[in-house]
Amino acid sequence: MPGVTAIRIVGIDPGLRRTGWGVVETEGNSLRFVASGTVTSDDKLDLASRLRQLHDGLAAVIDRLRPDEAAVEQTFVNKDATATLKLGQARGIAMLVPALAGLPVAEYAPNAVKKAVIGVGHADKDQIQMMVKVLMPRATFDTADAADAIAIAICHTHHRQSSQRLAAYAAA
Amino acid sequence: MPGVTAIRIVGIDPGLRRTGWGVVETEGNSLRFVASGTVTSDDKLDLASRLRQLHDGLAAVIDRLRPDEAAVEQTFVNKDATATLKLGQARGIAMLVPALAGLPVAEYAPNAVKKAVIGVGHADKDQIQMMVKVLMPRATFDTADAADAIAIAICHTHHRQSSQRLAAYAAA
Repeated sequence: MPGVTAIRIVGIDPGLRRTGWGVVETEGNSLRFVASGTVTSDDKLDLASRLRQLHDGLAAVIDRLRPDEAAVEQTFVNKDATATLKLGQARGIAMLVPALAGLPVAEYAPNAVKKAVIGVGHADKDQIQMMVKVLMPRATFDTADAADAIAIAICHTHHRQSSQRLAAYAAA
Repeated sequence: MPGVTAIRIVGIDPGLRRTGWGVVETEGNSLRFVASGTVTSDDKLDLASRLRQLHDGLAAVIDRLRPDEAAVEQTFVNKDATATLKLGQARGIAMLVPALAGLPVAEYAPNAVKKAVIGVGHADKDQIQMMVKVLMPRATFDTADAADAIAIAICHTHHRQSSQRLAAYAAA
């Protein structure tokens, strides 16, 4: 089909201890699993070194798999301010690394991600993993965070297709 | 004096809209102001681009002024979780940039910074600016955040001197 090119998307589920990532490829209506994994930081190191570990791990993924666009979950913490600050620091790195590589970076609320893969805004981690397997039977993931990251990437393929349809409609 | 070398310290007061920085030099008991400034991000841009602006601005400062060590304030927000997450993201960049340049990065609680420049743990922004001027008459700063950053750098010179004295005592 003319005008249809494969687009690679990296989804990222940020966390200071474990940041999940998942790369999928979309071409027209087809969706293909590329790879997924988890970048971890060593909690015996100081904070700056841990953030550097997250940076280096994510930068290596982007360098190796060359995604075109990135999507990061707008994770929320209802716990204390310390936990929120910690998550924010990891999330800053998760947004920065694709931006440094020149990728557009979209953000999605957890509810939007769940709606995209399950159809409703509420779901637990097990349901997300099952649906990722249903939507993408070849997908593999080593952690729940990697499965979440694949779900975030799938969510982005849905939203960018809607935006493209809207753009085509506006141009007609 | 043999064995005494000048050490350059960059203090950073992180914030998404404005990140203050201040570079001081310490040699034995003397303390010298080098430079200070403020890196801003454009709030009309998306978050990833704003984090990249903070990264690029801080990386340029470190590249130009070549500090040996960094100190970042453990800023706290008592407002809502959204504000804390936003600050966390900026703080992640403020810790990452010196770490990527190979600098050790120390963290100080706001009370420790105030105690170092004023002698007590509570002080408002005006008092910090006045004390920075008293301790370092040649210091200039364009914003309160830059003045705070100089205070953070001064705080680090105090703490690293105490650690060195302790190390010398232990070695004696």
